[in-house]
Amino acid sequence: MDRKPWGIGVAGLGTVGAGLLQFLGENPAFAPAGGLAYVSGVSARSRSRPRPVDISNIPWFDDPVALAQADATEIFVELIGGSDGPAKAAVEAALRAGKPVVTANKALIAEHGAELAALAEENDAPLLFEAAVMGGVPAVKVVREALVGDDIHSIAGILNGTCNYILTEMEATGRSFEEVLAEAQRLGYAEADPTMDVGGFDAAHKITILAALAFGCAPNFAAAEIEGIDQVALLDIRMAKDLGYRIKLVASAERSPHGALVRVHPTLAPLDHPLARAGGALNALFIEGERTGRLFLQGPGAGAAPTAAAVAADISDVIAGARRPVFQAPAEDLTPFDPVDPSKLMGRAYLRFLVKDEPGVIAAVSETLAEAGVSIESFLQKPTEGAEGVPIVLTTHAVAESALSAAVERIAGLPAVLDRPRLLRIARI
Amino acid sequence: MDRKPWGIGVAGLGTVGAGLLQFLGENPAFAPAGGLAYVSGVSARSRSRPRPVDISNIPWFDDPVALAQADATEIFVELIGGSDGPAKAAVEAALRAGKPVVTANKALIAEHGAELAALAEENDAPLLFEAAVMGGVPAVKVVREALVGDDIHSIAGILNGTCNYILTEMEATGRSFEEVLAEAQRLGYAEADPTMDVGGFDAAHKITILAALAFGCAPNFAAAEIEGIDQVALLDIRMAKDLGYRIKLVASAERSPHGALVRVHPTLAPLDHPLARAGGALNALFIEGERTGRLFLQGPGAGAAPTAAAVAADISDVIAGARRPVFQAPAEDLTPFDPVDPSKLMGRAYLRFLVKDEPGVIAAVSETLAEAGVSIESFLQKPTEGAEGVPIVLTTHAVAESALSAAVERIAGLPAVLDRPRLLRIARI
Repeated sequence: MDRKPWGIGVAGLGTVGAGLLQFLGENPAFAPAGGLAYVSGVSARSRSRPRPVDISNIPWFDDPVALAQADATEIFVELIGGSDGPAKAAVEAALRAGKPVVTANKALIAEHGAELAALAEENDAPLLFEAAVMGGVPAVKVVREALVGDDIHSIAGILNGTCNYILTEMEATGRSFEEVLAEAQRLGYAEADPTMDVGGFDAAHKITILAALAFGCAPNFAAAEIEGIDQVALLDIRMAKDLGYRIKLVASAERSPHGALVRVHPTLAPLDHPLARAGGALNALFIEGERTGRLFLQGPGAGAAPTAAAVAADISDVIAGARRPVFQAPAEDLTPFDPVDPSKLMGRAYLRFLVKDEPGVIAAVSETLAEAGVSIESFLQKPTEGAEGVPIVLTTHAVAESALSAAVERIAGLPAVLDRPRLLRIARI
Repeated sequence: MDRKPWGIGVAGLGTVGAGLLQFLGENPAFAPAGGLAYVSGVSARSRSRPRPVDISNIPWFDDPVALAQADATEIFVELIGGSDGPAKAAVEAALRAGKPVVTANKALIAEHGAELAALAEENDAPLLFEAAVMGGVPAVKVVREALVGDDIHSIAGILNGTCNYILTEMEATGRSFEEVLAEAQRLGYAEADPTMDVGGFDAAHKITILAALAFGCAPNFAAAEIEGIDQVALLDIRMAKDLGYRIKLVASAERSPHGALVRVHPTLAPLDHPLARAGGALNALFIEGERTGRLFLQGPGAGAAPTAAAVAADISDVIAGARRPVFQAPAEDLTPFDPVDPSKLMGRAYLRFLVKDEPGVIAAVSETLAEAGVSIESFLQKPTEGAEGVPIVLTTHAVAESALSAAVERIAGLPAVLDRPRLLRIARI
């Protein structure tokens, strides 16, 4: 078997980078197609920071761009992160030099995927990013390669382990979002600045990439509708459960004759639904296609070892030598999808209102909904413990989102309604 | 983009073959890597049998070997089935002619995989078989490509939709195996000769293939331990449910320091376990690796459209041009794994005995188990409706299989035991 050495330049030596160095050190002949992978150079912010692997014998580069361009770098692995700055500069340099790039950088691909695909194509260099989406779950490969004989209608899943952990803990322990987040930060499960995760942006990057692969479009992060979990109240988690649902941060992409819709928002999933049952830091994904029907994938969406294994799989694919367009079509044919007009979007919803405890209030809310054409499916009012106002919760039958928003606005203006109504969507998958 | 025409020769025109012809007719440019797929020739048992696609304009071959060798055949698709005979002859002819082969034939790959891999390698021709395992679920690709950066310890799943349908219906309707099988045959869900499915052989072919890919071994169908569902009694389904379990036909492959174990048998899975929750004709698979942890895949394991989509994905991979060894290592390095000695195998079990309703019987059974070192975890005796004998059911703690079998033999010989004891294993995943 061909055991040609392959020089791997690794930029970014956080936990994933260190995990990759360890793996390659122990398994240089891991690629079934042959070759002998060795780390030909590394770059990171600090050379001296303590790491679980010894890098003293590996050529060091202060500048990741120089590493990307170095003669010894035959495959460039970018684990720096961030949509711009050194990560982008180094990936561009590697592609310009015709070198295959493997990256775990979801922000970079979601925000600059189309231009990088064009650069990759011009220079005949593969650009792979399995580790950017769902860590150890091969969602990118499945959508890019296994489903090319299908027309994918929709994909939906739990793509952010931190949010899933926080929501799982809130339900299990009855603590607020703020308390659980603070604990997750203490334990290292959430970043010091948690915005990317809890604001839904990380999940939005990932679903943007999957949507581009599924629908053969340019990634269009700007068109993603994003709502995080920072406004999810414990009360909603409890009320939803009483109605038979669990609140999850669901990222979804749907293709329809009206265009495509990519969004991330807290979503009610029936308690026995596989998405509702994926707890803790798990990631889970449904893919629905015309021919295949429904595929479900679940596994560890983050972590150094699974993510490093995903990077290794991409390196193996480079060595195996397949040539595919980055996003299913030549870069020049890639166009962003058309976002869907909310008046075309039908769905069921959960609504919570805090109202004055006085006669006629429920009638006023119900009438306003009826006038807007919103039909109520279930209704829940629980006795309160001396708090100001009474929470009432209802779920609706399928209704156009625009009609629903208008009805909620009108209800918010009723004198008996004490607080901003809370609207959450019910899963369509 | 390169739109080189690719002649696809399709042998076997059952539902999958007809589905593939329809797909290729409507989507000749489906492969993202380029090319224009067209059906260059077909072969089947009957030329005139009514089919949902018109084949009158496609060159016809009476002999699949001639189709495999035809100049116009650039990729040979084998959908004939059967481990030997024309399927094997045609696949060998195509590989000898250096032509890429795509097959859905699990028996052929499980029983002759190693020799076909050698032939593929000698002639530098890819041999792909995604559609042979789990229909529309890309289990082969995930194990072969996505997990090469991992060490897979075990895989386990529901790989036969017919058995899963029968077990699901038995539980749901309270009918016997024989009744549900007869209905499934009437509805076309089971074959006239159901042995391959209900005998566990189909699932064993599939797990043999996955084991070879997961462990980098030669497929070793002869070493698979196989037990089907034809002996699963409604009573066991009910008793298991009372104990919190559902009976599923689980195919599993485990790697240990003692070798590898590949087997198929009815298995008790806890009711809230994803395998227990995969009902009807669904297929489901767990893959457990050193670095990735646990991956779970679920989807349609059969059906014309999903299986044709899997064949199309393999054609796309041929066009993309990757070169990988058929079973993760060069054919000359492939060796069959060592089967595991049952005395090394630990597991929990479900035991059912039919005993005389008289004092001292339970004591005798318990003592025999205790003497053999088998420790009881739970015990269930239900009042009977005037039948001869009383069924008692128990589950054990983990115990060596050899000790358990010995204990069961001894209990079978007790005078108060009326029938052959029933032993079922409890899932280890």
